[in-house]
Amino acid sequence: MIKVGIVDTTFARVDMAKEAVDVLRENMPEAVFIRYTVPGIKDIPVAARNLLVEEGCDAVITFGWVGSKLVDKYSYIALSIGLIMLQLMTGKHVIDVTVHEDEAEKPSELYKIAVDRARKHALNLVRLMKGGKEALTKYAGKGLRQGYPDVGPIVE
Amino acid sequence: MIKVGIVDTTFARVDMAKEAVDVLRENMPEAVFIRYTVPGIKDIPVAARNLLVEEGCDAVITFGWVGSKLVDKYSYIALSIGLIMLQLMTGKHVIDVTVHEDEAEKPSELYKIAVDRARKHALNLVRLMKGGKEALTKYAGKGLRQGYPDVGPIVE
Amino acid sequence: MIKVGIVDTTFARVDMAKEAVDVLRENMPEAVFIRYTVPGIKDIPVAARNLLVEEGCDAVITFGWVGSKLVDKYSYIALSIGLIMLQLMTGKHVIDVTVHEDEAEKPSELYKIAVDRARKHALNLVRLMKGGKEALTKYAGKGLRQGYPDVGPIVE
Amino acid sequence: MIKVGIVDTTFARVDMAKEAVDVLRENMPEAVFIRYTVPGIKDIPVAARNLLVEEGCDAVITFGWVGSKLVDKYSYIALSIGLIMLQLMTGKHVIDVTVHEDEAEKPSELYKIAVDRARKHALNLVRLMKGGKEALTKYAGKGLRQGYPDVGPIVE
Amino acid sequence: MIKVGIVDTTFARVDMAKEAVDVLRENMPEAVFIRYTVPGIKDIPVAARNLLVEEGCDAVITFGWVGSKLVDKYSYIALSIGLIMLQLMTGKHVIDVTVHEDEAEKPSELYKIAVDRARKHALNLVRLMKGGKEALTKYAGKGLRQGYPDVGPIVE
Repeated sequence: MIKVGIVDTTFARVDMAKEAVDVLRENMPEAVFIRYTVPGIKDIPVAARNLLVEEGCDAVITFGWVGSKLVDKYSYIALSIGLIMLQLMTGKHVIDVTVHEDEAEKPSELYKIAVDRARKHALNLVRLMKGGKEALTKYAGKGLRQGYPDVGPIVE
Repeated sequence: MIKVGIVDTTFARVDMAKEAVDVLRENMPEAVFIRYTVPGIKDIPVAARNLLVEEGCDAVITFGWVGSKLVDKYSYIALSIGLIMLQLMTGKHVIDVTVHEDEAEKPSELYKIAVDRARKHALNLVRLMKGGKEALTKYAGKGLRQGYPDVGPIVE
Repeated sequence: MIKVGIVDTTFARVDMAKEAVDVLRENMPEAVFIRYTVPGIKDIPVAARNLLVEEGCDAVITFGWVGSKLVDKYSYIALSIGLIMLQLMTGKHVIDVTVHEDEAEKPSELYKIAVDRARKHALNLVRLMKGGKEALTKYAGKGLRQGYPDVGPIVE
Repeated sequence: MIKVGIVDTTFARVDMAKEAVDVLRENMPEAVFIRYTVPGIKDIPVAARNLLVEEGCDAVITFGWVGSKLVDKYSYIALSIGLIMLQLMTGKHVIDVTVHEDEAEKPSELYKIAVDRARKHALNLVRLMKGGKEALTKYAGKGLRQGYPDVGPIVE
Repeated sequence: MIKVGIVDTTFARVDMAKEAVDVLRENMPEAVFIRYTVPGIKDIPVAARNLLVEEGCDAVITFGWVGSKLVDKYSYIALSIGLIMLQLMTGKHVIDVTVHEDEAEKPSELYKIAVDRARKHALNLVRLMKGGKEALTKYAGKGLRQGYPDVGPIVE
């Protein structure tokens, strides 16, 4: 049985997990999903850890929302290092979906970014879990983006 | 018996731990609280560690106060990484309540931020400890803030 | 049997792995190559770890592409720390080939940088794997560059 | 027998360790002190580690001096993370006394900052070692400063 | 038998290792030296690790050269954290000699900085290895510099 962990926050302003679960359920109907909601991004690593280590999840997808101030970005560095260390400890993927409050000025634009990023990264997770190491290789170097339109490859 | 650790500093300018303990005692009257006061934020991780590992606390809440200079922010990065690594090591929550000296110009405003943040995060800790992984899920993506009014979700 | 791991991303805009594999195959025809494609740079460390630890690769070469925004650079810090920690854990080389989107304004220039960097670092890996600790010593302090022309040594 | 480790550098411009040892000896006449001098701040963590792990020190106090350039501050980040990780590994306090070259323009002012900070943090160490977790609790949130006059608490 | 490891890069523009080996051989004629050359600074930690852990070196001295761009400085942070973590793991000194491309505008000046820094730090390593913890204590707080003239202590 495949188990996927989902970590999100009450700080975020869009329910990205819901979007991702739609994609995950559609593509992995056989999987079990365990959701874990924490206050903010610095609480995400321990939640992801507990889902991987204690709940036996095979992978985790996390949804962070980062404020626009410099200290928020510093918290983002700590989050990123934490999730990478966790992945080195466990050998399992933690797909980190992060939206930065200052990526767009208009809330409607932020909303679109968040939903698109959540859904596309959910699909990335599906591909990695079902297809393994080379599942994404046909897209290698193709300039794919999550939250924005793909920019495409640069050719000679 | 539930044990909650509380770490604060002599550098801070508001007794945030007192505010948090009020909330914690009211909502977890059965719990035992162990307080540990250190000089500044870089001393917080080892105190939190000792409360979790040696005293057997189930979770810790920490209260940091960060100066306004760039090097203070760099200390904040180190603190944040340290607390995240500690959580990865122990699998237990360390709710990190931090106030930045430059969040407000007026001391009275800083005071309000600190008290609000301490009390709301204490409640977050209560919910996580009593309700588990999905206790906060109804607030996921709802734009909750600690120290400020909630900003609310962005809807399509 | 020598096993070399290759990690790249779908975020990148040039298929650097292909360039590197050309060089690797030509110089190590006896080696086996395992490729692992992930979405972005923060997914690289766990892929490299799995190639080293689970697949038994002797070394890994990774191809990252970093956006031009400050938060992209912060992700780069996390990536770099992660790959260094992985190397400390395993004692194996992970040659990290990174291109920054803002290294050049013209796409054609970025393309040249990426290809040159990938090919030269592939050759570095060959030399380290076949020649050992002193294979590169004749070039020590010689101002070699990957992605750009060598700048050469400074002499008294 | 209480053992306290003292780490300082040849880069520093004030003999802070001497000041701290005065305070430590006066308040812990029964303790043994082991001093370890290294070139600069990035050498401090391993010295502190060896004092804690190999010499069996119960705690360490370190004296760093940081240059005014940005890369000096980056070294400070690495130092801070290192000392925090060491404390997480050992569960022992490492009180980190750091002076930044750019805290004052006049050398005489820097001197005063360094001496005051060293002496006050030595006293913090005494209190933590002799009084335990709540020894500093009466000062929690009181706005104590080392190197400068206390700024005091903010009251409602 | 004393074994000293030496790590340098092909990115550097001055053969600092040669300078350091001169000093080391003169002062530790009985020691064995093992040199390991890697492409750039992010490859230094694993090389230092292998010299300490696999080759049994008692200490390592590393020679890094950092570009002038912000991302080069970010690589420097990762390098510094890596070398500190390695020292915490092994309890052995890794003396980190780093030159920043932007320390001087004139190549001849950079050359002088690099040579002076390499030779002085080699002497620091000799003193620590032969004299132990207090070998440098007579210089504590004396404002010694490597790469530049000593700035001297600040006196009251």
